[in-house]
Amino acid sequence: MAQTVTPPRGMRDFLPADKARREHALGVIRGAYAQHGFDEIETPVMEDAAYLHSGLGGDNEKLAFAVMRRGITTEMLAAAAEADDALGLADLGLRFDLTVPLARFYASHRSELPAVFRAIQIAPVWRAERPQKGRFRQFLQCDIDIIGEAGALAEIELITATAAAIGALGLDGCRIRINDRRILTRLLETWSVPAEQHERALITIDKLDKIGVSGVVDELGSLGIDTEGVADTLSSIENAGWHLHDGTLPPPAWLDLDVYAELQAIRAAVTGIELDFDPTLVRGMGYYTGTIFEISHPELTYSLGGGGRYDGMIGRFLGTDVPACGFSIGFERIVDLLDTDVAGRADAVLLVHDKDAEPAALVGLKGSLVASGARVRLAKRSKNVRALLERAEADGFTRYAFVASGDTDAAALEFKTIGA
Amino acid sequence: MAQTVTPPRGMRDFLPADKARREHALGVIRGAYAQHGFDEIETPVMEDAAYLHSGLGGDNEKLAFAVMRRGITTEMLAAAAEADDALGLADLGLRFDLTVPLARFYASHRSELPAVFRAIQIAPVWRAERPQKGRFRQFLQCDIDIIGEAGALAEIELITATAAAIGALGLDGCRIRINDRRILTRLLETWSVPAEQHERALITIDKLDKIGVSGVVDELGSLGIDTEGVADTLSSIENAGWHLHDGTLPPPAWLDLDVYAELQAIRAAVTGIELDFDPTLVRGMGYYTGTIFEISHPELTYSLGGGGRYDGMIGRFLGTDVPACGFSIGFERIVDLLDTDVAGRADAVLLVHDKDAEPAALVGLKGSLVASGARVRLAKRSKNVRALLERAEADGFTRYAFVASGDTDAAALEFKTIGA
Repeated sequence: MAQTVTPPRGMRDFLPADKARREHALGVIRGAYAQHGFDEIETPVMEDAAYLHSGLGGDNEKLAFAVMRRGITTEMLAAAAEADDALGLADLGLRFDLTVPLARFYASHRSELPAVFRAIQIAPVWRAERPQKGRFRQFLQCDIDIIGEAGALAEIELITATAAAIGALGLDGCRIRINDRRILTRLLETWSVPAEQHERALITIDKLDKIGVSGVVDELGSLGIDTEGVADTLSSIENAGWHLHDGTLPPPAWLDLDVYAELQAIRAAVTGIELDFDPTLVRGMGYYTGTIFEISHPELTYSLGGGGRYDGMIGRFLGTDVPACGFSIGFERIVDLLDTDVAGRADAVLLVHDKDAEPAALVGLKGSLVASGARVRLAKRSKNVRALLERAEADGFTRYAFVASGDTDAAALEFKTIGA
Repeated sequence: MAQTVTPPRGMRDFLPADKARREHALGVIRGAYAQHGFDEIETPVMEDAAYLHSGLGGDNEKLAFAVMRRGITTEMLAAAAEADDALGLADLGLRFDLTVPLARFYASHRSELPAVFRAIQIAPVWRAERPQKGRFRQFLQCDIDIIGEAGALAEIELITATAAAIGALGLDGCRIRINDRRILTRLLETWSVPAEQHERALITIDKLDKIGVSGVVDELGSLGIDTEGVADTLSSIENAGWHLHDGTLPPPAWLDLDVYAELQAIRAAVTGIELDFDPTLVRGMGYYTGTIFEISHPELTYSLGGGGRYDGMIGRFLGTDVPACGFSIGFERIVDLLDTDVAGRADAVLLVHDKDAEPAALVGLKGSLVASGARVRLAKRSKNVRALLERAEADGFTRYAFVASGDTDAAALEFKTIGA
């Protein structure tokens, strides 16, 4: 076949070295979250289209892959064409995030769960986006959520557990930017932005890092918003952080002091990571109702994850209000930053055997090394032994021996270090 | 919402206890396979429809969930209705097994893989079957495959690694039934079954366990096959196993002695599990070309997994012939047989706290217990403490303490055993 055979556009295969690195990282993350009292759950990759398109997913709903109904008849197809409704032929869809499935799961199983439920979800999601560098149509999400806890204990546990996970991965220097949607609301009110323009104005403020204070002022102005005082406020905020109200200065008029005190309490209780107060932090999703936070790193222009409180959402399918707060780490970005070497590999042995070595003898040698705790790979000797060894080294093998026909005693083999 | 909220029909949610049990079992299986020199890979859940429907998947191709094209226009929809071709609106599909994706993966990455490639694939597959007890529309498959090894070493390594995995899971008493497609072919030739009826005749022989010798004879007869001698042969085979040709009796005329010698060599070299020779073992998939094998257990009427050699298939997308042999364990069946208790859980502590306990103090107590290696869950004290403790016990927690407002020292807490 002359044609190149590839995975579907925008989706990836993982070869052994990559897969091992990913599984190692996931094991570390799972371990940290479990220690911090979170419990892993799993939902099917598909949800009924009605749940997926219930408005909880925001813009991502448009990116859902639709799964076709089974047994579409001639009549159904004709009716869909008549109505110009292709999506009517789909009854299921692939999840585009893990929050909609969590809301559905919670509605299905509330009575089987603790009053405060701390969930881990580590699973792929799919988005039919235009593929581009670093953006994939299938990628892994890695979420923790606390459902049923209205107080700041949820934020503190989430941030502390996340700090433990990224610390255990060996990612140094990370910090947390924190804000609260209520502070943003008060800020917009101070600027007299009409309520119906808040969402649009937040989209603009979210670009502050990229377009700067003057860019934000221009864009707000073009929306017809009176921008008097905006530049001054934004300039006073930039890099001020907790110093905005640390006792040395009077608090700015727009600062909601009760909410600010909550953020201070979270800051004081979180261990393992530093929190920066950033009153201009927005985070995209419209469903946030309180605190919002993001993992930042001084050497990176992008965030390594984030989350916040979204009290209105989890109870939607139940028809009740349930407090909820979540933190999602950007697994795909994080795994790219990790050392390629998977730490803590066990003893791994390559047995390079002659073509005529007896299968029973080879498997016997392998078995005795496996019994001693080693990972063992057999490799038929080829002309290019160096290539064999290089590939084994890349796959984490640490030593090798040649096996000739007639060799049956592992203790008699002469082992050499790979890569020495 | 009065309506019950459920996952899609035929698909399952996994709650924490189930998920922990599954992940524990997968960890054990992964560990055993890795030690035996297999390397895990991952492919996207979707494949291009052309690969999925290339004929390698047999009847399962009909069960593939189809994923709709993006941006279906009015014209595309009208054309599909005109042609009565709903599937023309789908360009991707969810995989129904892990073998078709492996063939596609191998074609995409052959140059990056060792000459003999030992693959682990542990991943969900989807089949749009009618849901019924024990049969799901999303389930996990757990495959190992050796690509590029034409000799019996492949079978020996696969069976030995599988035996190690099920042994490590604590499943005692399993055995392997083994046969070879070439023995079945010779058997049918001895009975003068025309080549074009072989496939149909094998489907009948596959039912021997259920319908017995007379049932097989009747069904073969109804296909127009001359059944003289069939009953005698089948009766002589039943329960004879390796004794069919162990030196005490002359070999039956239909037994291919070269192939039989290969099976004997495999039997002699495999460690950790006993092999039974069953010349009537068929296994459903049409793609097998040589050895076939199945995990049996004397107390179970169903198999716990199986596999075989399928030399014609992996190279299909490459346009070359590549030898291949695989073993798939029936994860969903196996996990149901395991003890519900997840072995080897670390110290797990429940802190039952008063409603007014300070978040910072609680997280401090939790942090010091986490630092000592424990898994820690906070639980707000409720009237029904017994229910709290029972749920925690079900989730694997081993001890608990009450925390009152003002408690800040973990060493001063009074711990009790849960369930004592």
